[in-house]
Amino acid sequence: MNDLEKMRHTLSHVLAAAVKELYPDVKFGIGPAINDGFYYDIDFGETKISDADLAKIEKKMRSIIKRRLKMTKREATKTEALNWARDNQQDYKIELINELPENEKITFYDMGDLFTDLCKGPHVDNLGEVGPFKLMRIAGAYWRGDEKREMLTRIYGVAFATDDELNKYLEQQEEAKKRDHRKLGKELDLFCFSDLVGAGLPLFTPRGTELRELMANYSLSLRGREGFKKVWTPHITKTDLYKKSGHYAKFGDELFMVHSQVSGEDFAMKPMNCPHHAQIFASRPRTYRDMPVRYMEATTDYRDEKTGELGGLSRVRSLTQDDSHVFCMKTQIKEEVRRLVGIVKELYETMGMQKLRARLSYRSDEDKYLGDKKLWEMAQNQIKEAAIDNGLDYFEQEGEAAFYGPKIDFMAEDALGREHQLATIQLDFVQPERFGLEFTNNKGEKERPVMIHHATLGSIERFLSVFIEHTGGWFPFWCAPEQVRILTINDKVSDYVAKITDILDTIVLDTPLKYNELRYSVDDSADSLGKKIKRATEMKIPAILIVGPKDAEEGIVSIRLRDKEDKIKLNKLSTYLKGLK
Amino acid sequence: MNDLEKMRHTLSHVLAAAVKELYPDVKFGIGPAINDGFYYDIDFGETKISDADLAKIEKKMRSIIKRRLKMTKREATKTEALNWARDNQQDYKIELINELPENEKITFYDMGDLFTDLCKGPHVDNLGEVGPFKLMRIAGAYWRGDEKREMLTRIYGVAFATDDELNKYLEQQEEAKKRDHRKLGKELDLFCFSDLVGAGLPLFTPRGTELRELMANYSLSLRGREGFKKVWTPHITKTDLYKKSGHYAKFGDELFMVHSQVSGEDFAMKPMNCPHHAQIFASRPRTYRDMPVRYMEATTDYRDEKTGELGGLSRVRSLTQDDSHVFCMKTQIKEEVRRLVGIVKELYETMGMQKLRARLSYRSDEDKYLGDKKLWEMAQNQIKEAAIDNGLDYFEQEGEAAFYGPKIDFMAEDALGREHQLATIQLDFVQPERFGLEFTNNKGEKERPVMIHHATLGSIERFLSVFIEHTGGWFPFWCAPEQVRILTINDKVSDYVAKITDILDTIVLDTPLKYNELRYSVDDSADSLGKKIKRATEMKIPAILIVGPKDAEEGIVSIRLRDKEDKIKLNKLSTYLKGLK
Repeated sequence: MNDLEKMRHTLSHVLAAAVKELYPDVKFGIGPAINDGFYYDIDFGETKISDADLAKIEKKMRSIIKRRLKMTKREATKTEALNWARDNQQDYKIELINELPENEKITFYDMGDLFTDLCKGPHVDNLGEVGPFKLMRIAGAYWRGDEKREMLTRIYGVAFATDDELNKYLEQQEEAKKRDHRKLGKELDLFCFSDLVGAGLPLFTPRGTELRELMANYSLSLRGREGFKKVWTPHITKTDLYKKSGHYAKFGDELFMVHSQVSGEDFAMKPMNCPHHAQIFASRPRTYRDMPVRYMEATTDYRDEKTGELGGLSRVRSLTQDDSHVFCMKTQIKEEVRRLVGIVKELYETMGMQKLRARLSYRSDEDKYLGDKKLWEMAQNQIKEAAIDNGLDYFEQEGEAAFYGPKIDFMAEDALGREHQLATIQLDFVQPERFGLEFTNNKGEKERPVMIHHATLGSIERFLSVFIEHTGGWFPFWCAPEQVRILTINDKVSDYVAKITDILDTIVLDTPLKYNELRYSVDDSADSLGKKIKRATEMKIPAILIVGPKDAEEGIVSIRLRDKEDKIKLNKLSTYLKGLK
Repeated sequence: MNDLEKMRHTLSHVLAAAVKELYPDVKFGIGPAINDGFYYDIDFGETKISDADLAKIEKKMRSIIKRRLKMTKREATKTEALNWARDNQQDYKIELINELPENEKITFYDMGDLFTDLCKGPHVDNLGEVGPFKLMRIAGAYWRGDEKREMLTRIYGVAFATDDELNKYLEQQEEAKKRDHRKLGKELDLFCFSDLVGAGLPLFTPRGTELRELMANYSLSLRGREGFKKVWTPHITKTDLYKKSGHYAKFGDELFMVHSQVSGEDFAMKPMNCPHHAQIFASRPRTYRDMPVRYMEATTDYRDEKTGELGGLSRVRSLTQDDSHVFCMKTQIKEEVRRLVGIVKELYETMGMQKLRARLSYRSDEDKYLGDKKLWEMAQNQIKEAAIDNGLDYFEQEGEAAFYGPKIDFMAEDALGREHQLATIQLDFVQPERFGLEFTNNKGEKERPVMIHHATLGSIERFLSVFIEHTGGWFPFWCAPEQVRILTINDKVSDYVAKITDILDTIVLDTPLKYNELRYSVDDSADSLGKKIKRATEMKIPAILIVGPKDAEEGIVSIRLRDKEDKIKLNKLSTYLKGLK
C-alpha cells in the first residue's frame, strides 16, 4: 500500500471516529481506501442522515486531525477481539471476527485514545500526515453486498496528496456533473425513458436518432471502405443456435427468453450476432477465392441486466452494436487485424479521443483455452505485428485472452481524462469449429476459417453516454443533430431567410461522413432575439445565424459560434459552414 | 352462382367419379368450386397417390365428360340420405348428414347412373357443357380443417370458359413458378434460413441487405422530404405498454412473450410501433406550433405466426415495417393524408406497380367503433377529399374501418396481374385517448391530437416477396444489389479495367434515391468468357461490361444489357450508366 492509500485508509478511521463522536450509538461495517478516496459503511439505527450532515461530520474530522493523534497497531486474540466488539455493541465486527480462523493474529488500530477499530492496516503513523480531503456523498449499501442483509449508510470521501490534486479532482467532478449524459440527454432532447416500456430501454427522439445514426453510419462507412458488406439478422433465434455455439451453457441465464404461445418453441433474444453471421457464412459453399468474407451489421442486442445496474445509456438492456465478423484464412489474420486497428484509430481521432491505449490479451499456460496452441501463438504474433505496424500504444497481458482466442481491447481517454474501454478486436477459433464452418483451400481441401469479431464504437448507446459527456453536448459540427439555426430579428426578413435556406439546402458535408446533408431550422417566432439566442444556446447549436434587415441590405450573415462571432458574405456562407469543425 | 362456377363445381363431381372408378374404396370429403377451379378432398385409405397419378385421373375425367351424362337433382329425407351414405361406406358424408337439422330437405346430384353425390348444387345440366380444365396438384388437407382429424388428399384442378383463358392462366402459373421469390432468393443469394435460428426468421445476405436497405431508405426518404423525422425504439417493452394501449386485450395471444430471468418482469416483443412512438410524443409538452409531429422508423416487429403459415418472405415472424406516425390536429388530417397518398403513388410508380386501387374504409352504424361520431365523419370527409385531390382510383366501403378510425388500404397490381394489399393509411382516435396525449392549442387549452399510422411498403419482407416476383429478379438498375459486372476476356486488360473502375467509382445515382453509389464487381478469373457471361446472367446483373484488348485499344466498352448490347466510348460510360432504368 502506498502513502496515498495509507492516508486514505486512515481517513476512513477518522470518518468513523467523527461519526462516533456525533452519533455514539452507531454500528460500523467496513471502511476501506478506494480509488480517489475512502468510504465507511455505517448503521445509524433509527437516525436518518443525509448529504446535509456531511459538513458537520467533516468539521468534526478536521478537528480530530488537528489533534495529530498517533495510529498504533495492536495484536489481540480472537477472544479479546470478540470481547471488545461485544463491549462496544459492534455487531457487524462480531460477525467479521467470528469468521476468522481460531489462531489468526487479529490486529486493532488505536487512534490515540479516541477511537479503536478492528483493522489490518497499514495506516499513517500520525494524523498529522493526513492530506487534503473532502466528504462527497452518502449512498445506501447492503451489508456484505447482500440484498437480503441490512442496508447500511455509506459515506464517501475523496483524498489526495496535494490541494492542487484535490481541487483538480473536485473541478473535474463538477464538470462531470454538468456533463452528465442523463441530464444532457434530457436538456438536448436526445432520448427518453418510459415507465410503460421499462428501465434500460431508451427511446430515441429525432435528435438522438440523428446522432446515433450518424455514429453508426460513420463507423460502418470506415469498414465499408475496407470491403465489409452489411448483412441483416433477426433479433431472436431458437435457443438451438446458442446450444450449438456453446453460448447457452455459458451465458444461458443472461438471456432474455422468448416463448412462442402459438408453437410452444423456445427462443432467445440475441445477446450477440456472431452465431447469426456464422449461419450466413454457412449458407453457401466458400472457396479461398472468396476469403476473407467480411460481414457487418449495426443491430440491437438484448441482455438481461439487473435493474439496479441500469443507468441512462451507460448500461442498457437494448444495446446496439456496430458489429462485424471477418471469416478468414489463418494467414490473413495480421492483414485483417491491421485494417481494423486502422479503423479504430481513425474513428477515435475523429471523435477527439485520440489518446488510445491497447491491451493485447494472450493465453497463459492454463488449460481453459480452446484451440490449437500453435495457432494461438501464430495469431498472437500476427496481432502484435498489426499493433506495431499501426504505431499503437499497446501493452501485453498473458492470461487475459478469451477462452476462444486472443484479443485487443482499446481504452480511449475522454476530455475529462477518464479512460473508457470501447473498441475491441477478438479472434475466435472455437465458433468456426462448433458450427463446422469451412472453405475449400487452393489445394481443394476443406479448411476451417478463423473468425474475427470487431466493434469500433462497441455499444452505440454506451458510446453515446461517453461521447455526450466527452463533448459536454457541444457536438462536433458534422454530427450535431441541429447544426445551424437561423434566428430572425423581426418579421421583415423572410425573403432574405429564404435566400439563406436556399444556400443551406445545397450544403452536403463530405467528411468524415459522406453525403451528410446540412441539418438546420429557422426560429422566426415572435419572441425577442434575446430569448431566441438563449434557446439556441441552451440546445448547444454549433452555428447560430442571426438575420436582421441590415444583414439583408448588406447581403451578409452574422454567425455566432460557441467561441466567436463572424460576419460572412452570403456567397461565402457555404464554404464557411463546410469549414466548421 | 354463375355459369363458370357451376361448371367448376360439376368438374369436382367428375373428378370424384373418375377417382371412384380408379380407386373404388375411396371415401369422399367435400368438393367445392373455388377461385380459378375446384378441388375434392378424398380419403384414399392405404393407397398413396401423387402428382404422377394426376394424368391418369384426368384421362378418366375426359372419358366421362365425353359421355355427356346428365346432372340430375334429387331430394331425399335424412334417413334416405344416411342409408345411401352407409351403403356406400361414405363415413365423412355420414358425419355431414348427421349434423343437418331433422327436417332439412337434403339434395343429391346424380351424374347419369355413373355417380351420385350429396350436394346442394347447382350444376350444369349436362357434362357436355363442361369447358377446358386441368388437374394441377395434390396437397394434404385436414378433414374440416382440424389438425386433430384425418388427413385427406386434396386434388386441385383449374377450369375456365375458354381454352385461351386456361392457357393464359397456365402460362401465368408457369411464369409465377419461375419467379417464385423463394427460388430466386436462393439463386440470387438474397436471403437464407437456418434451422438453428428458426422458421419465419430470414437472414439477409449482403445482396439481400443491399436491396432491403435501398427499399427502406427510399421509402423513408420520401417521407423525410415531407417533414418526417426518424426515431428509434427498442424491440421489447413491458407488457404494461400494451395493457394501457388496449392491444394486450385484443392481441395478447399473438405476442411473443419475453421473460426476464433476472428481474422476473414480463416483456413482449413489439408487434407494432405506435405505442412506442406515442411515448416519445408524450416525453415533452407540445403546443399547436409543434404540430403536426411526424415520426418514422424502419424497425422490426415480431409476430407469433403459426409455423405452417410461414413461407419465404411472404409471411415471417420478423417483419420490418417502414412505419410512421403523425400526431396532428383534427383540422390537419386532410393535408397529412394528402401527403401520404402522394408518397404511396410516387413509390409504387417507381416500383413499376402504378396500377393502384384504394379502398376507403368507413364506419357503419354498429356500436363497435370508438370515438366521437362527428369526428369520424369529419375525418372520413377529409380522407375522401385527399383521395380525390390525388386522383386516386378509389372505392368506399362502410363497415370496413378499424374500430379506432377510418383508413385507406392500397392494392397494387404486379407484372403478372396479381393484386397485393401493401400500403395503408390509418387514422386513430383511440390511442391518443388511452395514452392521454395532448398539446396546447392556440387558445391555451389542452387538446387531443389525432394519430395517423402509415406504412408505404408495409412489411419490407413481404414487399420484397412481391417485388422479387414482380421483377422476376431483374431489379431496376437503381436498386439491383450488383448493378454492373466487368468481365475480362483475358489477363492483358487489367490496366484498362482500372481505368473503367476509376470511372465507376465516381458514379453516384441521384434518382429515385439520392447518394446511391454504383455497386459493381470485376470477374477477372481465368474462366472462359462464356462461363463468366453465364454466371453474370444467372445473377441477373443489369449491366455486363465485357472488356478485351481490342476494347482497350479503341477506348470503348462493350455493354450487355438484358435486352440489348451497346458499344460505348469510355468518356460516355458514366452518362450511359446513369441513364439506365
